[in-house]
Amino acid sequence: MALGPGPEFDRIRSIAHRLGARAHGLGDDCALLPDGDRTLAVSTDLSVEGVHFRLDWIEPAEAGWRACAGALSDLAAMGAVPVGVLPAIAVPRQASEDDLVALAGGIGDAAGAVGAPVIGGDLSSGPVWSIAITVLGRAERPVTRAGASPDDGIWVTGTLGGARAALEAWRRGETPEPGARAAFARPEPRIAAGRWLSAHGARAMLDLSDGLAGDAGHLAAASDVRLELALESVPVAAAAIAAAKRLDLPVQQFAAEGGEDYELLVALPSDFAAADVREFEEACRIALTRVGTVKRGGGVRAELAGRPLTLRGYDHFR
Amino acid sequence: MALGPGPEFDRIRSIAHRLGARAHGLGDDCALLPDGDRTLAVSTDLSVEGVHFRLDWIEPAEAGWRACAGALSDLAAMGAVPVGVLPAIAVPRQASEDDLVALAGGIGDAAGAVGAPVIGGDLSSGPVWSIAITVLGRAERPVTRAGASPDDGIWVTGTLGGARAALEAWRRGETPEPGARAAFARPEPRIAAGRWLSAHGARAMLDLSDGLAGDAGHLAAASDVRLELALESVPVAAAAIAAAKRLDLPVQQFAAEGGEDYELLVALPSDFAAADVREFEEACRIALTRVGTVKRGGGVRAELAGRPLTLRGYDHFR
Repeated sequence: MALGPGPEFDRIRSIAHRLGARAHGLGDDCALLPDGDRTLAVSTDLSVEGVHFRLDWIEPAEAGWRACAGALSDLAAMGAVPVGVLPAIAVPRQASEDDLVALAGGIGDAAGAVGAPVIGGDLSSGPVWSIAITVLGRAERPVTRAGASPDDGIWVTGTLGGARAALEAWRRGETPEPGARAAFARPEPRIAAGRWLSAHGARAMLDLSDGLAGDAGHLAAASDVRLELALESVPVAAAAIAAAKRLDLPVQQFAAEGGEDYELLVALPSDFAAADVREFEEACRIALTRVGTVKRGGGVRAELAGRPLTLRGYDHFR
Repeated sequence: MALGPGPEFDRIRSIAHRLGARAHGLGDDCALLPDGDRTLAVSTDLSVEGVHFRLDWIEPAEAGWRACAGALSDLAAMGAVPVGVLPAIAVPRQASEDDLVALAGGIGDAAGAVGAPVIGGDLSSGPVWSIAITVLGRAERPVTRAGASPDDGIWVTGTLGGARAALEAWRRGETPEPGARAAFARPEPRIAAGRWLSAHGARAMLDLSDGLAGDAGHLAAASDVRLELALESVPVAAAAIAAAKRLDLPVQQFAAEGGEDYELLVALPSDFAAADVREFEEACRIALTRVGTVKRGGGVRAELAGRPLTLRGYDHFR
């Protein structure tokens, strides 16, 4: 499939070129394997201390929860039901057994919250905590990044910018407000929302780990379409408002450029209506907000208050 | 299931205790999930620079091959056919793109050698190379560690001690001989052998990553039996002979205490005969050697030349 822009994707392209026929279907949220009349979805997601989290910011149990929730979010983006989780954890030599048990407990809690058992894993020592979480799920009708068509609406679940608000505070040496901290430390994988959207006509879906700006580009590339985003509509997390003001950024831009919210970005048919939104919000207890439209062409065009705005993506690979 | 001895297993026990009902079936080579009339086998295996390998010892492509072969070896130990591989790679900031492509190429080559495509994965930066490989396979009749019964024979594939010979040389600052180096850098996952043994009555099986000494203890614990090993019979890699002499150790002890040979340790029914061995060796092109017998009781008892010998296990978690 066509991969979107960004340095991590450049590296994936180089690897895919080297592997040739040995690589199949790289670049979506999950690998898909036939599984009787359903599909098995598998994903593996790496969370490294000092890159994705710091233990002077969050507790070991939160680092485990967050790593696992981020991996489960890839199943949500396929509309899959989680069936099992396998963590591979590198443990610093100076870490206590209590820290390991707390971190693994956070992984188990995030998995347990969506009904998935921990079914295997691996342990090693290492210079820093490194948490690779593999998740397996089953989907009746998996939704890839590649099915968006012109005239589809572009929608997001929940609110954006909360995790970024926490990161910006920590980077200034401050304590984030509780809502921002929770968005970063305890994200909720949108499993129920992903299943609902898959069952109600979702054409293309992915989870917002690289931010709306970055992930819209991935959806556009995979579906070979252009995404037009109306940033006024972006649902902004309450915690992001003050944080955006500090940076003198429009709140919607702050939210659209923030990463790791683990909400879903989804293309829905143009006749998806207000009644459908109410049904979603009643079933899933989170918001569903239209933020744009699919057009012919390529790339992403964002406007705020009638003016084009170039959005920065969020790069984990740093 | 009952877990064997060793510090890594102590940690797994602590984690399993914390997870309670959130953990299922930890401690075997693979997690098993029903998959129509077959079984899906999944395993994840972590390989960390400075712990499992060093890049002044082996090339990036070999580090990738070795990490992937070690993970595939867990599928071999279940009698499973590989269907896909997902690498999650942490890349040091100073590493070149060529090194990443070479390492990922080694992963792809090891997967391709047993017919499995790379179907997904993840990239991050990190302080050292850290390679988490998830493998998926399908088994008609998965063989766990838990089925050995009194009177079964205990057998190993191939020869042992080669990887340890390489490690001992590198640790002395020397260059290992080519056979030893290849055993460490390019192990062959015993996929065909595992399938053959599964189809010919294997009752319990695991792969030798912790060494015969350590892994015999895991098989004994999981099957709730005692293993009596006759060390005279241990098939010793040619490269291990000189290496054992340097340490003034009996060659069989050197081989039995070495780790990471990725051969299979298997319990076969007592009527498994010389004709069966010939059939195996013709089909799989490697040796199959009886090294012991299953008895009632617990633990492992090893004898060399009629004298009991206490074997040291091989601990990766250091």
